[in-house]
Amino acid sequence: MAKQFDVVVIGAGPGGYIAAIRAAQLGKSVACIDAWSTADGKPAPGGTCTNVGCIPSKALLQSSEHFEQANHHFAEHGIEVKGVSLKLDTLVGRKDTVVKQNNDGILYLFKKNKVTFFHGTGSFVSQSDGGWTIKVSGKAEDELVAKHVIIATGSSPRELPGLPFDETQILSNDGALRIPAVPKKLGVIGAGVIGLELGSVWRRLGAEVTILEAMPDFLAVADQQVAKEAQKALAKQGLVIQTGVKIGEVKSTAKSVTVPYTDAGGAEQKLVVDKLIVSIGRVPNVDGLGLDTVGLKRDERGFIAVDDDCKTNLPNVWAVGDVVRGPMLAHKAEEEGVAVAERIAGQHGHVNFATIPSVIYTSPEIAWVGKNEQQLKTEGRDYKAGSFPFMANGRARALGDTTGFVKVLADAKSDEVLGVHIIGPMASELIAEAVTIMEFRGAAEDIARICHAHPTLSEAMKEAALAVDKRTLNF
Amino acid sequence: MAKQFDVVVIGAGPGGYIAAIRAAQLGKSVACIDAWSTADGKPAPGGTCTNVGCIPSKALLQSSEHFEQANHHFAEHGIEVKGVSLKLDTLVGRKDTVVKQNNDGILYLFKKNKVTFFHGTGSFVSQSDGGWTIKVSGKAEDELVAKHVIIATGSSPRELPGLPFDETQILSNDGALRIPAVPKKLGVIGAGVIGLELGSVWRRLGAEVTILEAMPDFLAVADQQVAKEAQKALAKQGLVIQTGVKIGEVKSTAKSVTVPYTDAGGAEQKLVVDKLIVSIGRVPNVDGLGLDTVGLKRDERGFIAVDDDCKTNLPNVWAVGDVVRGPMLAHKAEEEGVAVAERIAGQHGHVNFATIPSVIYTSPEIAWVGKNEQQLKTEGRDYKAGSFPFMANGRARALGDTTGFVKVLADAKSDEVLGVHIIGPMASELIAEAVTIMEFRGAAEDIARICHAHPTLSEAMKEAALAVDKRTLNF
Repeated sequence: MAKQFDVVVIGAGPGGYIAAIRAAQLGKSVACIDAWSTADGKPAPGGTCTNVGCIPSKALLQSSEHFEQANHHFAEHGIEVKGVSLKLDTLVGRKDTVVKQNNDGILYLFKKNKVTFFHGTGSFVSQSDGGWTIKVSGKAEDELVAKHVIIATGSSPRELPGLPFDETQILSNDGALRIPAVPKKLGVIGAGVIGLELGSVWRRLGAEVTILEAMPDFLAVADQQVAKEAQKALAKQGLVIQTGVKIGEVKSTAKSVTVPYTDAGGAEQKLVVDKLIVSIGRVPNVDGLGLDTVGLKRDERGFIAVDDDCKTNLPNVWAVGDVVRGPMLAHKAEEEGVAVAERIAGQHGHVNFATIPSVIYTSPEIAWVGKNEQQLKTEGRDYKAGSFPFMANGRARALGDTTGFVKVLADAKSDEVLGVHIIGPMASELIAEAVTIMEFRGAAEDIARICHAHPTLSEAMKEAALAVDKRTLNF
Repeated sequence: MAKQFDVVVIGAGPGGYIAAIRAAQLGKSVACIDAWSTADGKPAPGGTCTNVGCIPSKALLQSSEHFEQANHHFAEHGIEVKGVSLKLDTLVGRKDTVVKQNNDGILYLFKKNKVTFFHGTGSFVSQSDGGWTIKVSGKAEDELVAKHVIIATGSSPRELPGLPFDETQILSNDGALRIPAVPKKLGVIGAGVIGLELGSVWRRLGAEVTILEAMPDFLAVADQQVAKEAQKALAKQGLVIQTGVKIGEVKSTAKSVTVPYTDAGGAEQKLVVDKLIVSIGRVPNVDGLGLDTVGLKRDERGFIAVDDDCKTNLPNVWAVGDVVRGPMLAHKAEEEGVAVAERIAGQHGHVNFATIPSVIYTSPEIAWVGKNEQQLKTEGRDYKAGSFPFMANGRARALGDTTGFVKVLADAKSDEVLGVHIIGPMASELIAEAVTIMEFRGAAEDIARICHAHPTLSEAMKEAALAVDKRTLNF
C-alpha cells in the first residue's frame, strides 16, 4: 500500500533536508529519501556538503591550519615547541566525528519536525490521481505517493575521460578527504574551490602539491585582482600552480600517477605524483531517477530544467540545488529549498540570485558577492572601486595575518554597492555584512557611515567603502 | 609668533587622530597635539587604544590563544607537540612591534593628510580674536591659535583609593600588558572588559587568576543570558571569578599583594597574589588642559560637558571620545571625531549612539549592539527573542569551538531588530552584520531571508533570526 505525503523530497543534502523541514513547518506531511550511508550502513543524511564537502573540508582545514601555525608561525609568538608530529588517523578521525555530528543532527531535525525519512534511492514510477508515485529502493522497498515532489539529488565529481576515480590513486573530493598517509607528492587537476582547499590541506600537512589548471587565468570566476593576490599568497605557501595547461593521457600504477601535459608556453611536461586529485567540476545526479519515465525535461547541459522558481516542466515537480542551473553552493540550494517549500504552501518564497555569496576557504580566505570588476567592465557599467588592505588594519596586525584586502564596487552615480570582494582573514564571515548591504540596496556611503567595532577586521570593509569616495581614514 | 590653524586637536587617540585627518580631508588646516612617547622619547600617537589598550591586548590575546591551543587542544586535532614552552620576551616583543606599526602608521597618515603634529601636551591659554590660543608643552614649546579646538584627551585607569599604580605589583592596563614573567598567582579587581581580557591572557600563559568584582551580577552591562554563558565558559577555563565582594585595605610588599575582602556570603576572605591588576573603571583626562582658565564646563562626573553633537559650552570648542559622556570605546570616539570634523566643515555629521557595538575579546568572544533583554523588560517593551547555539552550527563544529549562541531581540509587533547579543567564536566580527541591519532598521525577518554563506558562523545569526519566528531550520 503506497504511503501518501503532501511532499516527497528526493535527497537530504542542504537543498533537500532544508526543503523537507520547511515544508513540514508549514503543515505539510513530508517524506525525505536519501541513500548516503555510513561505513556500517546507517543513514548519513547531509549529502555531499556534510559527508564529503563543505563540512569535512573545513574540519581538515582547521586542523591543518593549527599544524601550519605550530610549524611555521609559533616562533614569532614566542611559543617554542619541540618535535611537532602528526597523527593523521586522529586528525581524520576528528573530521569523521564532525561529519557524524552533522549526520545525526539532521536525523534529529527530521524527527523533531516530523519528516518521515526513507533510507534509499527514490525514483519516479508514474503520475497518478493523487500525484506522483515514487519508489524507494534500499534495504527495504517502499512506494510513496506525493502531491509534490522536490528533486534535490545534488551532483557528483566529474571524471577525466578514461580515468575513473579509484579513490586510492585517483581521488575525487571524497578520497581526497581520507588519504591514509600524507603523500610526498600530490597532484591536483583543476584549480577551483575544491582543488585549492584540499591542495591547501595536504600542503600544510607536508605534501609537495602541484595544481594544474586548464584555464589560462587563475580563478577566472573571481575578481581578477583578488585572483592575483590569491595566486601570490598560495605560491608563497609553496603551492605550485600552473595555468593554461593541456592534460595528456594520465597513467596510474600502484606506486605512482604520471600526468603528461603541455604547459602554457607549449612545452611538453610530465608530473609524477603519489596521488592525484581530479577536481574539474561536477555533474548533476539525474541517473536512476526515472526522469524519462515521466517525461521530466533536462537542459542542454544535463541539469534538470527549471525556471527561476525551481518549477520543472511537470506539474508539482520541483528541483533545487546542484541538480539545477546556478552555482553549486550549499546555501544556494538551501535558499531554493526554503522558497520551494513556501511556494508549495501557497506563500511567496523568493531567492535573490544576485546576492548569493561565494567563499573559498584557503588561507587567506576568499569571499565575494555581486559583480566583479571584469563583469562590470564587460557590461559597460560606470562604477567606482575602493580598496583597503588588511596590512593597514589593526586587528589583522594583532592576529599576525595581514594578507589581502577588501574591495567595494559601487555604481558611479547612485553609489549603490554592486559587488564586494574580500581576500584575507575571516573573509568567509566578513562577507555577511556585504550581502546584507546589497539586500537593502545600500550605498558604499552607508557602509562608510556605519559604526564598526574597533579593533575588528570588519573595519576594513568600512575603509574600503570610504575608499570608494577617496576618503580612507587609515590608509 | 603663534601658528594659525583652522582646527587644533588635543590628543591623537582614535577620536583625535581620526578627527584631525577628517578635518584635513575637508580642506581645513589642522594641527594635532599628543604627548605619548615611546621608551626612547619619540612620538607614539594612537592613545590608550594603540599603546596600552585595544591593539596590544589583542596581540597578546592572539599569542596566548595559540599557546592555549598548543597546550590543550592540539591532541584532538592529531597534532603532537613535545615540550611547549614560552619565551615571554618574544611574545611581548611581538606585541610591541604591532603597537609600533600602529604608531608609525598614524604618523604616516598625518603626513599624507598634511596634519601638523606637535609632540607634547596642549592647554588652553586664552580666547583671542582669531579663536583659541593653545600652548604646546613638550621638548619644544609652541603657541597655536585655532578657530576650532577638538579635545580628545581620553581617559586614565582609576586607582583604588590609597593604592596608586606602581606598574610592578599594582598594575593598570599598562603594566598588565608587560609583566616580565608569568606570575604564579594573579589577582584582578574588576571583572569588566579589561579585567576579563587581561585575566584571560595571563591565565592562558599559566597564571592562576582570581577576579574579584564588587557588583553582585557578573557582566551586568551585558545581556544576562550572555553573562551567564560567559561566566560558565570562563570558569571552565580556570578563571576564578567572585562577584558581590567588598574589597578591604590592600597591602603590597615587594613579594606579594594581599587583598582582604568580604565575599558575597559575608565571610571575610584573603587573596594573596604575586601581582594585582586593578581595572575598576577609567576617569576622563582633564587635568592640565587649562579648562578653568577659559571656563570650560564639566559635568557632575567630571567629564567635559557636551551635547549630542559634541559641542561644549564654549564657541568652537568640541570634545569627543572617553573625555565625554557615553561608552569608552575607540570606535565611538572615531565616529564622534568624524562627525565633529564634518560639522566644523559645514556638513551634517551624525553619530547614531543606538548602534554602537560593544565587544569583549575573551574566548569565547562577546559582542552586542542595541538593547538587551533586561533593558527591554525595564522599558516594558513588547519583544520577541530568538536564539541559536553554535553547538548546532556546522562551521563552529569544524573549528572545534561551539560555545555560546546568537540571540536576536525584535519588536513583538513590527519585528524590527532591537538588539543582537553574541557569545561565541568571532563574535567581534559577526556583530558587524547586526549593526548594519539595525542601521537600516531592518526586521528579524530580513536577517532570516538573507542568504548566508555555508558553512559560516554567520549562519547562526540567520538561524537566531528564524528563531524569533520560531522556525529555526537547524535546531
